[in-house]
Amino acid sequence: MLKKLLIANRGEIAVRIIRAAQDLGIATVAVYSAADAEALHVQLADEAVNIGPPAAKKSYLNIEAILDAARSTGCDSVHPGYGFLAENAAFSDAVTAAGLVFVGPSGNAIRLMGDKVSARVAAAAAGVPVVPGSAGRVESIEAARGVLEETGFPVMIKAAAGGGGRGIRIANSAAEFEQAYPQAQAEALAAFGDGGLYMEKVIGRARHIEVQVLADGHDAVHCYERECSLQRRRQKVWEEAPSRALSDALREELCASAVALAKAVSYSGAGTVEYLYDDAADQFYFIEMNTRIQVEHPVTEAITGIDLVAEMLRIAGGEPLRLVQDDIKVKGHAIEVRLNAEDPAKDFAPFPGKVDNLRIPGGPGVRFDSMLYNGYQIPPFYDSLLAKLIVHAETREAAIARLKRALNELEITGVKTTKPLFLALAADPSVQVGDVHTRWLEGWLTENAAALAG
Amino acid sequence: MLKKLLIANRGEIAVRIIRAAQDLGIATVAVYSAADAEALHVQLADEAVNIGPPAAKKSYLNIEAILDAARSTGCDSVHPGYGFLAENAAFSDAVTAAGLVFVGPSGNAIRLMGDKVSARVAAAAAGVPVVPGSAGRVESIEAARGVLEETGFPVMIKAAAGGGGRGIRIANSAAEFEQAYPQAQAEALAAFGDGGLYMEKVIGRARHIEVQVLADGHDAVHCYERECSLQRRRQKVWEEAPSRALSDALREELCASAVALAKAVSYSGAGTVEYLYDDAADQFYFIEMNTRIQVEHPVTEAITGIDLVAEMLRIAGGEPLRLVQDDIKVKGHAIEVRLNAEDPAKDFAPFPGKVDNLRIPGGPGVRFDSMLYNGYQIPPFYDSLLAKLIVHAETREAAIARLKRALNELEITGVKTTKPLFLALAADPSVQVGDVHTRWLEGWLTENAAALAG
Repeated sequence: MLKKLLIANRGEIAVRIIRAAQDLGIATVAVYSAADAEALHVQLADEAVNIGPPAAKKSYLNIEAILDAARSTGCDSVHPGYGFLAENAAFSDAVTAAGLVFVGPSGNAIRLMGDKVSARVAAAAAGVPVVPGSAGRVESIEAARGVLEETGFPVMIKAAAGGGGRGIRIANSAAEFEQAYPQAQAEALAAFGDGGLYMEKVIGRARHIEVQVLADGHDAVHCYERECSLQRRRQKVWEEAPSRALSDALREELCASAVALAKAVSYSGAGTVEYLYDDAADQFYFIEMNTRIQVEHPVTEAITGIDLVAEMLRIAGGEPLRLVQDDIKVKGHAIEVRLNAEDPAKDFAPFPGKVDNLRIPGGPGVRFDSMLYNGYQIPPFYDSLLAKLIVHAETREAAIARLKRALNELEITGVKTTKPLFLALAADPSVQVGDVHTRWLEGWLTENAAALAG
Repeated sequence: MLKKLLIANRGEIAVRIIRAAQDLGIATVAVYSAADAEALHVQLADEAVNIGPPAAKKSYLNIEAILDAARSTGCDSVHPGYGFLAENAAFSDAVTAAGLVFVGPSGNAIRLMGDKVSARVAAAAAGVPVVPGSAGRVESIEAARGVLEETGFPVMIKAAAGGGGRGIRIANSAAEFEQAYPQAQAEALAAFGDGGLYMEKVIGRARHIEVQVLADGHDAVHCYERECSLQRRRQKVWEEAPSRALSDALREELCASAVALAKAVSYSGAGTVEYLYDDAADQFYFIEMNTRIQVEHPVTEAITGIDLVAEMLRIAGGEPLRLVQDDIKVKGHAIEVRLNAEDPAKDFAPFPGKVDNLRIPGGPGVRFDSMLYNGYQIPPFYDSLLAKLIVHAETREAAIARLKRALNELEITGVKTTKPLFLALAADPSVQVGDVHTRWLEGWLTENAAALAG
């Protein structure tokens, strides 16, 4: 078992990881930028080290400062959380080279999945359906024109080094394609230092469904799926489990494919295999694998009873995977909403400020993961996620009712939050029956801008 | 289904019931005394009615004022919570006579179980083991002397109209008995308006184990047991489920006996059958049945996933019992501790005051049921329970670790609370292995007074 863990992150996920470590009796070291000296993760950790000024590049992205903090406090391990350095292969390598345990996969596994082309190739090799498109990197515009025969239009031209929705262009015709291709190449080089591109057919109307896996380098299990189709600018805002779009047979197939991929790449730790599911065609396609804990992991914890972060720490500590697939059962339905410090009435403009008063919802089936406290001053330097409200109930309908109840209980005064968005979504007939897709929310927001402004 | 519910209570249980009603789409009406105008249950309910001055007799025990509030707001039902009028048979009758649904058993069932002698007789008739003692009320001191042959010394002389630890005298010898009996008679008459007495052998070293039942007047199921052996002055302070003292066979027997009793009295609603378990003799004895939701119900909710208050509301609304015994499964271990506004360093003297700051623990497996908020002024008129911290984990050991973590996260400033007691108990070897009994805590407190004072 690990003895002392440095948490190379901030915000709610740093708090989440500290809780898991403390539950397991592992000592904790927080790191913080000058903007976060009063942060909750600093208060809750056993020790805390200032690693630099507010700018993330100089603190939460500063590998040397983080390794120095780990060494000076006698840590034996580092958890990267999500974002910042979590999917930076060089960081995983550097932690390992420093003689510390990286709580996550090897640098090579991160690299393999971080390069979206090699991930696509690995998935196809493991028998996982991929979106029709180029077999690997497109070598030239001539080769790209050949791929168009398979994809048709619209087609996506994607940066091999992109991911998470970044570095994508869409062409609707041959003419657009001829213009877009060289632009995409130049942009990818500028943004990622790698001009490599690949191509994928645009899946018109699809759901985002992802499978949680846990693996120890030898064995792997899945913890079923999450559906995250409600997205704004490709960012998930509402996640739930199970997906009501899947039949049991398709669920088994999807989850088995994720386990096959994890095993094929000798994956270790918690990971998520993401898919698009075209429910009209009843077809799913691999899109990418996230080699870290995800923001939305609590919905899986709620329906399975598994503490995913604790399992990550156990695996990193050298324990073989404790979970047996047949013992992992789904109970009820869970929903998570992301409360961001944003003004829904002003196109979700960031709204940093001071939290005057906080009233946290409670009772059965309600979990609130947050770094907020009364009087907390939200710094303007980082992402706007303030809290995740997770509800769990017997059925999806009961979970939505509980979500409404908990949202009405929740008060965060002093800053604007996305709470009104979720109250409106919970009351929407399409959301209530689950008839949504990844572009549904953008349309809904256009139609309901007035309601949110009111 | 019920449409509009009046909650005839205050504090955390009023909040708990409002949450369950809102989850089910039932409108809620709070009642409050003049001391509770700013209370959380008033804030969270859809409507709220002032029912009188702070003194409980004039407000929360004022049946007419409560019925007036229900009528004037168009309620169809009343939930009594626990304490106050929850086990007042006349209240159940009055609610029913007013054409409203009482969320709980009939007045007759409350009366049967409220009279500790008739409860004892009913239990024995249902085949539930009772503590050796008088068959019913003791008719005379001569008859009482005859009972001594069965009980031996020490013996308890108990008021038939008592309960919950009130109205009890213990005699250690024949001489003490001759003195105590007439005193007990006079005291019972003065305290309860009923001089009736019964006698029970003193079970020396025993655990308090109770079984949760749910029934609809026809059918009944149990939701397994809770152990509440850690008591101070006969008040539970730490409750958990399952009990680690029971073998599976004994657990089945105990739970089956509770169901048999509930069925024998055509019980309806949530109830708890309480037992003493003498683990040296491997023998359990019925002590009483509580005909209401209990403070410690959340530990059962945690391990079974059943929302007990929601089930009460469904049953009261006329739905037949939805739960099938074989589907009720236990998962993991849960512990609840009662955070009271008391100073453990000063013999638990009540400590009303203003809550300056509140930091609520979170993360997986942590539930916090409370009426607290920042700036809340705790009134001096009612009981001292501020909050219940409930933790749930895979094993008892993991639950204790999570309890420590959550207690350390919890901050309630401005008033003294029993938090230091629970941190000390969580670190105690006897508590860690579960080697405790109902008088263990009193001894521990004597030995550890210095530690709590520090």
